[in-house]
Amino acid sequence: MATQMIILNGGSSSGKSGIVRCLQAVLPDPWLAFGCDSFVDALPAKLHASDEGIVFAADGAVSVGADFRALQTAWMEGVAAMARAGARVIIDDVFLGGSGSQQSWQKTLGELDVLWVGVRCESEVAAGREVARGDRVQGMAALQADVVHDGVVYDLEVDTTHTESLVCARAIAARVS
Amino acid sequence: MATQMIILNGGSSSGKSGIVRCLQAVLPDPWLAFGCDSFVDALPAKLHASDEGIVFAADGAVSVGADFRALQTAWMEGVAAMARAGARVIIDDVFLGGSGSQQSWQKTLGELDVLWVGVRCESEVAAGREVARGDRVQGMAALQADVVHDGVVYDLEVDTTHTESLVCARAIAARVS
Amino acid sequence: MATQMIILNGGSSSGKSGIVRCLQAVLPDPWLAFGCDSFVDALPAKLHASDEGIVFAADGAVSVGADFRALQTAWMEGVAAMARAGARVIIDDVFLGGSGSQQSWQKTLGELDVLWVGVRCESEVAAGREVARGDRVQGMAALQADVVHDGVVYDLEVDTTHTESLVCARAIAARVS
Amino acid sequence: MATQMIILNGGSSSGKSGIVRCLQAVLPDPWLAFGCDSFVDALPAKLHASDEGIVFAADGAVSVGADFRALQTAWMEGVAAMARAGARVIIDDVFLGGSGSQQSWQKTLGELDVLWVGVRCESEVAAGREVARGDRVQGMAALQADVVHDGVVYDLEVDTTHTESLVCARAIAARVS
Repeated sequence: MATQMIILNGGSSSGKSGIVRCLQAVLPDPWLAFGCDSFVDALPAKLHASDEGIVFAADGAVSVGADFRALQTAWMEGVAAMARAGARVIIDDVFLGGSGSQQSWQKTLGELDVLWVGVRCESEVAAGREVARGDRVQGMAALQADVVHDGVVYDLEVDTTHTESLVCARAIAARVS
Repeated sequence: MATQMIILNGGSSSGKSGIVRCLQAVLPDPWLAFGCDSFVDALPAKLHASDEGIVFAADGAVSVGADFRALQTAWMEGVAAMARAGARVIIDDVFLGGSGSQQSWQKTLGELDVLWVGVRCESEVAAGREVARGDRVQGMAALQADVVHDGVVYDLEVDTTHTESLVCARAIAARVS
Repeated sequence: MATQMIILNGGSSSGKSGIVRCLQAVLPDPWLAFGCDSFVDALPAKLHASDEGIVFAADGAVSVGADFRALQTAWMEGVAAMARAGARVIIDDVFLGGSGSQQSWQKTLGELDVLWVGVRCESEVAAGREVARGDRVQGMAALQADVVHDGVVYDLEVDTTHTESLVCARAIAARVS
Repeated sequence: MATQMIILNGGSSSGKSGIVRCLQAVLPDPWLAFGCDSFVDALPAKLHASDEGIVFAADGAVSVGADFRALQTAWMEGVAAMARAGARVIIDDVFLGGSGSQQSWQKTLGELDVLWVGVRCESEVAAGREVARGDRVQGMAALQADVVHDGVVYDLEVDTTHTESLVCARAIAARVS
């Protein structure tokens, strides 16, 4: 059966977005790409820096509130529906709740054929890339590097510490049926 | 019954995005916002400037191919599913097919309670704003200004030619139940 | 003698950037465009939200420190040198110090032939456009709308409250020799 | 004598921008950063894709015309003036003319104390990163990888093929006096 979704999970600055763009380039079919960044962009500006929405603390800690969670749940339902309607979909996400986040996706996705991919990057290297990109709160990369993988089960894992995005993408693409 | 979706239709540079952000600010509930721009961003880069994807000609004409249409149909299903799952959703779109585009949405949205909004802007003014924003192919605004409204039926229309985005948004918000 | 620089001064969300892009489009010669935004982008990230750099308070108030001022002075010298070297240059700036800011520019620019343009926008309208653009701290537009013009002397003034960017640009271009 | 400018030269997607942001973070003084991207952003939109301006061919070849060159020369004079006025300045550039480009800078910069840095990246790796970033014409990275270094003399060279931006930045910072 054909893979219907690819879900990449990894901490901030672990290299997910670059892998997604490479996957879209190397996979022969056209895949849609969405993720936590495009979801946050869809929120009202007033939910940024709101307790009901999403707050990025000065140390890089991220906390989300009730409105964020409710809208996120509906967004996940929508993503699942796109896949059921025939679009092949790549999601990049940050499982702030570790295995609990994965279970939420699994409950939503039901019978869909999903390839689960862990994107690792050594904490110190991810923190350096956070400095290099310059558009993120310093500290997020280190805080998220390990905790987002806690208890999560993958079909394969890639590690961007010493491996280029395109090489990681090819390894993932080789597992897409 | 509560309005579940707001769909704004208008030509390029008619002022849809500004109205969407104002709507998200003035509506008391948090609404998610998606649109043709966020959909195009989700496509593989290789579908940009591809006959199977979306092509922006030098004169501002836009043409879309089979892959674009198939993914767009699935994306519309996903948006409908988000609304059914309880998220209130604002869509801004460019009905290149006029009433045909509206019928595609209606077929997808079924029983959902939708507020249909036409966003008008005099062709010459929209063309000037296209120059001012600087990030679009010149000519799109004028080519799309009228044709996207052809045969489309609205609950209300706003005109940004002489009316600010925030004022348009308040008029729309007053119709949301 | 040919105009060597055009300096636009106006509060946040008064419409300066749109006028600049229109000026670049309608002026027959190619003009370079710089401004307070491109200067801030050139600063180290660590000067954003630093007392030595630039701080955007939650109410829209902007304060700048010693490092910001020193680098800004050198940047202004550089801009003047570009104009003396033959580039025609458009600057858009926010004179937080009113006439004092203009005097700093005048001291730097010396004998250069400058067209001074005030960009006005009614405070309430600018505040609405601040909501519509969605990427600025709410409150800046209203706080800056009048104070940036305090004591400043112009060759001409435009008002974007009821006039499109392109129309304003044409009025300015008509004054360029 | 204190280093007044750092000039990084390397092909597209060799990692210059990331190194610049890391340099701004690790250098104790505040340094301004400009480069070929910010210069191109300052050009009128009509010089993009114009023979007089800058043309990006479908294969990644870049060609520039008379207007581009004239404005670039004035821009370089301006950058030199900022450094003479006391701002410490980092430039990232792509020496399409190899040693000729360096000589143009040297002629402009005169007596300024400049640290010349070559940024290398293996062609194949740079091409992969070009896919991963997704916002550049495919082919530029490979075409520029070697030619931009032709005959150029450096104070030090870094290679991002296997070395992180932050580590490269620290090596450069150690050479700043």
